[in-house]
Amino acid sequence: MATSNTLVNEVVEALQSVVGSTPVALHEPSFEGNEWVYLKECLDSTFVSSVGKFVDRFEVDLAQYTGSKYAISVVNGTAALQIGLKLAGVQTEDEVLIPALTFVATANAVKYCNATPHFADSEEPTLGIDASKLREYLKQNTIQQSGQCINKNTAKVIRALVPMHTFGHPSDIEGLLSISHDFKIALVEDAAESLGSFYQGKHTGTFGLCGTLSFNGNKTITTGGGGAILTNDKEIARHAKHLTTTAKLPHAWEFRHDEVGYNYRMPNLNAALGCAQLEELSGKLKAKRDLFTRYLEAFRDVQGITLFREPKNCQSNYWLQTLVLDEDMSELRDVILETTNKNMIMTRPIWVLLNELTPFKDSPCMDLSVARSLSCRIINIPSSPGLGLVSL
Amino acid sequence: MATSNTLVNEVVEALQSVVGSTPVALHEPSFEGNEWVYLKECLDSTFVSSVGKFVDRFEVDLAQYTGSKYAISVVNGTAALQIGLKLAGVQTEDEVLIPALTFVATANAVKYCNATPHFADSEEPTLGIDASKLREYLKQNTIQQSGQCINKNTAKVIRALVPMHTFGHPSDIEGLLSISHDFKIALVEDAAESLGSFYQGKHTGTFGLCGTLSFNGNKTITTGGGGAILTNDKEIARHAKHLTTTAKLPHAWEFRHDEVGYNYRMPNLNAALGCAQLEELSGKLKAKRDLFTRYLEAFRDVQGITLFREPKNCQSNYWLQTLVLDEDMSELRDVILETTNKNMIMTRPIWVLLNELTPFKDSPCMDLSVARSLSCRIINIPSSPGLGLVSL
Repeated sequence: MATSNTLVNEVVEALQSVVGSTPVALHEPSFEGNEWVYLKECLDSTFVSSVGKFVDRFEVDLAQYTGSKYAISVVNGTAALQIGLKLAGVQTEDEVLIPALTFVATANAVKYCNATPHFADSEEPTLGIDASKLREYLKQNTIQQSGQCINKNTAKVIRALVPMHTFGHPSDIEGLLSISHDFKIALVEDAAESLGSFYQGKHTGTFGLCGTLSFNGNKTITTGGGGAILTNDKEIARHAKHLTTTAKLPHAWEFRHDEVGYNYRMPNLNAALGCAQLEELSGKLKAKRDLFTRYLEAFRDVQGITLFREPKNCQSNYWLQTLVLDEDMSELRDVILETTNKNMIMTRPIWVLLNELTPFKDSPCMDLSVARSLSCRIINIPSSPGLGLVSL
Repeated sequence: MATSNTLVNEVVEALQSVVGSTPVALHEPSFEGNEWVYLKECLDSTFVSSVGKFVDRFEVDLAQYTGSKYAISVVNGTAALQIGLKLAGVQTEDEVLIPALTFVATANAVKYCNATPHFADSEEPTLGIDASKLREYLKQNTIQQSGQCINKNTAKVIRALVPMHTFGHPSDIEGLLSISHDFKIALVEDAAESLGSFYQGKHTGTFGLCGTLSFNGNKTITTGGGGAILTNDKEIARHAKHLTTTAKLPHAWEFRHDEVGYNYRMPNLNAALGCAQLEELSGKLKAKRDLFTRYLEAFRDVQGITLFREPKNCQSNYWLQTLVLDEDMSELRDVILETTNKNMIMTRPIWVLLNELTPFKDSPCMDLSVARSLSCRIINIPSSPGLGLVSL
């Protein structure tokens, strides 16, 4: 118990040495560039809604920054993933491989397609899907039939594989791409948390058939609410735009829609904010990386807990700074959460494993021992770019 | 042909006498109140996203204005209707009665619930569902079983009835409410177009189990993109908020979600715009009503076409001003559309009947002769409040 108290106190002290002793949030947006100028320009133009120059520009800027051929802005990251899955052919009765350790939106997007999430285990080095373990699992549990991957246990098609780049750290994309290829399962990247994160020099979200981003208020940059679909495929891009704009056929005045579409456009008002935020992205990333090095120094001598570091060959955006408790210290997680939050330093655990939630409790899953262990040992700590020392 | 040319010319002249000869849009938003102030305040607070004081205030203001006990703001009108239908119990394999003559979003929302739209005919006096005709149709085509209304032809449950208040004109709510009661079909009002429209002194969207609003850029007031659910039922309100905010259970830090939820919150940024726009609503409504009287005067002597007027006992918002061609003049619709648009006066027809669109061509429908006739005879003309003479 002496040791326990010591670790809890050491964590609080280490955090305070970096963030100070005034109340501090987990992640706050900041608006220090052209946000007001663009918002005002947007309002003055009266084009605040479904079309406008900021929507067009935001899509061009996003494509340019990520190196994706196309970017389609939408109303939020969940909507982006739903459409991405649809474009990958996900349909009623299909299964979609996703990590058990992700935000619930990943699984909800699968459900919106009337498909079933199929939960994969995680690995410690990336916090993402363990590609080697998944490969073994698929070898034993699936067969190939007419170019499709069939789950032998459920007789359903496994249509897509969705890596999620946890807290901005790229998953093992090479391993997962190779599974996608060998087992004929479309790769759709949930890059909601990883704008500004690169795997071997290439931006996350640009490896599979398509990838999706989020610009919610807690993300590295925000549009209020918003998301985007990235793809290098011209037809996927065209179809994504069509589906997210009510599937209306072009005509001077006629209202003809050729499929069930969605009202998923990003309003021009939100895109105006996005254009300004994107201009500031590189500064925010520098500040977040600086914050990481400061935390690294602060936690250097703290035994029993480790600051999570970007995976090999990756450049992470360090969206949410992450502490991982040693396995024998995991019972301290809740005390640390309670003590830090009581000290006005906002911290939070990683998500409850999705297969433990009521709506997904009957979904198929592989052995989830690593994800289960990680789910009890991870604590996110204050991560706003404003906490970095690098001038924004 | 002489007569034809005469009517086309008379329409153009009548329009120009009201809107002038500079290019004019169908419906433009205007921002002449506190929009800048509130947007700036929102940005300065850094609360631009999923929570914030403008979201709370917008919901209170909406409830107060409409006289609804509760208002839940969401990302757009389509999302509002999807959630409204879910709350009415609409599920896979159900049928939902909607007008054939409505914007495609009404039918899409039904599809998102994996249900089937069942198309009802319209009536000339309201442009909404013909309640008497629907009652006769239901008498002949449905039976009551265990308190549910069963379509005898498909053996499916008809779970909900969705009147849509076309261009802001209230449907025959009394007739439809009585059908809802007698046939045990939940009434969910699609009031996307009718903020500011009252039926017998009570705001549209407040009569059924719940109602839905839209604040898209083309509507009477706009939030960029947005919508709301109105209800007088506390439990429906609680559930609507829960479902639209990812169904997360309250907890200081734990991520536990008890059903498949949605990321359908209205961002605080958009709500800030909404609060300012709502303050200006009564001025806009006055201006739109003034525009109606000016059009009425301009079209008084034009034979073969009639300016649509609010139904009896109703106060319409006159969202989109509407011309209805006499039946024997319907072949002139496209010439009028072409000529007016060529003259930079933006006009458009009403929607293609939804049962004629590919995704809905197999949906059940009653006789749609009136809707079919109206769909070929209606032209919307410029309707922005700025075109009214009343000072905003």
